[in-house]
Amino acid sequence: MNDHQVPNRIYATYWIESAYPLADAAAIMAGEQSTGTFLRVPGETDELRKKFAARVEALEEQGPVTSPSLPGSGTPKNWDGKRRTAHVTLSWPLYNIGPSLPNLLATVAGNLSELKPFSGLKLLDLTLPPEFLTQYQGPQFGVAGTRTLTSVYGRPIIGTIIKPSIGQTPEATAQQVKTLAEAGIDFVKDDELQSDGPHCPFNARVSAVLDVLNTHAARTGKRVMYAANITGDLDQMLERLAHIEANGGTCAMVSMNSIGLPAMKIIRRHAHVAIHGHRNGWGMMSRSPAIGMSFIAFQKLWRVAGIDHTHVNGLRNKFCESDESVIDSARTCLTPMFSAPNKGCEVMPVFSSGQSARQAPDTYHALGTTDLIYACGGGIMGHPQGVAAGVQSLQQAWEAAVQSIPLTAYAETHTELKAALELFGA
Amino acid sequence: MNDHQVPNRIYATYWIESAYPLADAAAIMAGEQSTGTFLRVPGETDELRKKFAARVEALEEQGPVTSPSLPGSGTPKNWDGKRRTAHVTLSWPLYNIGPSLPNLLATVAGNLSELKPFSGLKLLDLTLPPEFLTQYQGPQFGVAGTRTLTSVYGRPIIGTIIKPSIGQTPEATAQQVKTLAEAGIDFVKDDELQSDGPHCPFNARVSAVLDVLNTHAARTGKRVMYAANITGDLDQMLERLAHIEANGGTCAMVSMNSIGLPAMKIIRRHAHVAIHGHRNGWGMMSRSPAIGMSFIAFQKLWRVAGIDHTHVNGLRNKFCESDESVIDSARTCLTPMFSAPNKGCEVMPVFSSGQSARQAPDTYHALGTTDLIYACGGGIMGHPQGVAAGVQSLQQAWEAAVQSIPLTAYAETHTELKAALELFGA
Repeated sequence: MNDHQVPNRIYATYWIESAYPLADAAAIMAGEQSTGTFLRVPGETDELRKKFAARVEALEEQGPVTSPSLPGSGTPKNWDGKRRTAHVTLSWPLYNIGPSLPNLLATVAGNLSELKPFSGLKLLDLTLPPEFLTQYQGPQFGVAGTRTLTSVYGRPIIGTIIKPSIGQTPEATAQQVKTLAEAGIDFVKDDELQSDGPHCPFNARVSAVLDVLNTHAARTGKRVMYAANITGDLDQMLERLAHIEANGGTCAMVSMNSIGLPAMKIIRRHAHVAIHGHRNGWGMMSRSPAIGMSFIAFQKLWRVAGIDHTHVNGLRNKFCESDESVIDSARTCLTPMFSAPNKGCEVMPVFSSGQSARQAPDTYHALGTTDLIYACGGGIMGHPQGVAAGVQSLQQAWEAAVQSIPLTAYAETHTELKAALELFGA
Repeated sequence: MNDHQVPNRIYATYWIESAYPLADAAAIMAGEQSTGTFLRVPGETDELRKKFAARVEALEEQGPVTSPSLPGSGTPKNWDGKRRTAHVTLSWPLYNIGPSLPNLLATVAGNLSELKPFSGLKLLDLTLPPEFLTQYQGPQFGVAGTRTLTSVYGRPIIGTIIKPSIGQTPEATAQQVKTLAEAGIDFVKDDELQSDGPHCPFNARVSAVLDVLNTHAARTGKRVMYAANITGDLDQMLERLAHIEANGGTCAMVSMNSIGLPAMKIIRRHAHVAIHGHRNGWGMMSRSPAIGMSFIAFQKLWRVAGIDHTHVNGLRNKFCESDESVIDSARTCLTPMFSAPNKGCEVMPVFSSGQSARQAPDTYHALGTTDLIYACGGGIMGHPQGVAAGVQSLQQAWEAAVQSIPLTAYAETHTELKAALELFGA
């Protein structure tokens, strides 16, 4: 919260593009999302407006554009021919809606994206009052709790995704996890496409995998975290969560966009394990610079609802996201949403997509911490000396990164890292 | 379902834009969303692929573009310099995920929108196998049931939104609804910003409004439908639903994007009233032609989950949506999703935004039916002869439309319509 913000209001910042004078455009947003409508109606008294209207708190012009980013927008009467962009911050009194995430969404997003005066409008950030913590529990484990559950300290949690995504039997899945556990992995997860099909039923898969991991833990003392995908309807998710817990699991994965905030709130209330929030479908809201929502705003909603981990892509990833955006996303996951003595709601960022030893130094230097899950597929499974060497090469890469030793220098005395760099490039 | 489609598969059609050869681009989509990943992994056997891989069912080139619609895309090795667009249809065996809407979303959307080979990718349509009806109830009331609940036949259900959106007391809200009921309105609804704030608590508001409507029904025999906004967390929504039902209400409104599909499924299971599905936030997914989801695909998910009504904007609306898109949306709401003897899951489209008498003929001729809710604000409240005349002018406009009599001719013998046309234009 900035100094000028007051604690009982909701703040939302947007990027806008409009042919309207920017002050008019901002006023239209505030009106549409509070007391106003297209026409001023009789009941919209000055007193009512004073008490309930959204306020324009800030407006910073960002420079002109030559053509509309999105179709369907309009121009004002006596248009000056210019199309401007700006950052706009609106605020609402919390009592308009109370501390409710579903009603918050309708207020900060609602019909805004369709308003004709705008040829672009994107939600960039949200600041919520701590009263939301009276209704929502926030993360149960977050960074510190995930370290406790995995007993991994001083370096990232090294993980991988079970592949192929779908089609393997429970037994084949468990066999793959056994190989990974014996190789020293900290974390494995289902693909988001894996659910409860007849070829690989959830209960059978989770029982088989956790049996392997329980045996491994009994033998070695190391408890590998398995994020089993519980995504489904609410009753199914609660049953699957209970199955994980009954079998000694420590994590459940949920596709956030598939289930909605109210279901996540209920899962959080029931869960005794970490909640791994998968953001698949996120590209629909993020990919266009002119519409949708930033990840910074998006993940705040889910942190309050109770996730412990969420995905941020990775540096030099195989998707379309820039490195700058990846680091911004990870940094925001690790930034408290509320000031002490409130819970801060930090969550653990999950780096994935084309990650190997070579991105460790840049990731560490950009982020300044090892508080992350570092998920590699090819970087582990594709290592020429085998899966265990793959895991070791990643641990070595992070040792080098933390000590600011160039990877190639560290590789001189670490053969697994050396082989990895030869395969993936330094 | 087209003739070539088989009943135990899921079909999804996309618009894509890519610098890759279109067949390669389609194969990348199918691989990413089923058995494949960026690299072929050892477990991805031919047998596994045959059984579980997504298939490319159709690929129709749509013509080239000169520049990428979205940032972040890549080009193939030996790129020919061309960027093409196409319609692609993929299919998956239902047994990959079973009849689960949350898992369906992860499968047909998932990470597709972020894939680097695409500079545009939008989900256009879905075809689901009727097995989904073993897990989901679909609409309880739909068109026919909504007509029964309101006793309105042979014309649209004429409605309006309570304004100002927020800030009125329960008593002032009920007074406004009393005026509207006495004017002959069929349907009123809360604004999506109205929820359960301390100035207008849900229970007090709904009790006051339904008391007015119950008295009105006892006196006149006409039961006005009130879509009270129950949007919130799941326990709150179920309590609010019960409050509506205990007080004789016939409808509950829910912001679909705020709550998610699993919560809607549960509301549907408990509801004895019509579910009014509000699509606010929809612009985030729809506004860009290059990313997101068509309304045609979107509303199918919610119809299966159980909504009875949903919003489609209106002709010459105040938002950025084109008339063509509005009519396509309404038509798809009224089109069965499943063939007999299965439930068709048709829902009632809600026209709103700047609607008045003047859009009735074009709406009727484009849609060919009166099976819709026609919500007007200014068209009713702003009528120069009062609210009752406003309602009558809309009924008259639709009488003229259905009889193919020009509005101006019909207005010669209908003074309320005549006054409306003078105000709003013919």
